Amino acid sequence: MPINRKDAPRSGCPIATTLDLLGDSWTLVIVRDMLTGKKRFSEFLDSPERITTNILTNRLAAMQANGLVEKTPYQKRPMRFEYELTEKGLGLLPVLQEVCRWSNKHMPETWVPPDSFMNRKV
Amino acid sequence: MPINRKDAPRSGCPIATTLDLLGDSWTLVIVRDMLTGKKRFSEFLDSPERITTNILTNRLAAMQANGLVEKTPYQKRPMRFEYELTEKGLGLLPVLQEVCRWSNKHMPETWVPPDSFMNRKV
Repeated sequence: MPINRKDAPRSGCPIATTLDLLGDSWTLVIVRDMLTGKKRFSEFLDSPERITTNILTNRLAAMQANGLVEKTPYQKRPMRFEYELTEKGLGLLPVLQEVCRWSNKHMPETWVPPDSFMNRKV
Repeated sequence: MPINRKDAPRSGCPIATTLDLLGDSWTLVIVRDMLTGKKRFSEFLDSPERITTNILTNRLAAMQANGLVEKTPYQKRPMRFEYELTEKGLGLLPVLQEVCRWSNKHMPETWVPPDSFMNRKV
């Protein structure tokens, strides 16, 4: 399902409007990677979930269009970019911390994040 | 993108594993509706986001398979069901509260939920 970033919000509901931006299987995985210090396309590809290059390209573009990430060039030939979370993107940390609490409680086979992640403030 | 409920988790990451269950545009909208008292198929169809019957059918089945909802019959001919959150499904309330905080802060055109929702405990 494509991320619904170009259409009008489905409603004024804050939950539905958020899902218009990040209601897919990958966007919050990329946010996680950025929160833990990854910045480059090749680093995101390296994560254990094995995102494909076309999905990663698509999601990074959507995240930039939606104000969640900024990209800056770090190399000119060929041009390559680093991606970092904006304040809006960083603000998703408390959402992800609650997701981890829920997941660790109800799916106990999942990894327990380090305290440095769970106690981090933005 | 179909909900990845039948495959193995993509990784042990609690975020990725959660998105395997509810990383789509609709599942958390249905959880929201159930948290605010809706139980019946026709009530979910009535929500302002106008979910289609086939997506709703698909999502309710996935949510049941994933242990987020239980269904019980309330009518025999034709057989009709009511859907309610399990403890696992109810446990998503803090995630949704953080989503609302983030959304209201960064997308100020979104509705502000009533205190009864934002302060509710599970």
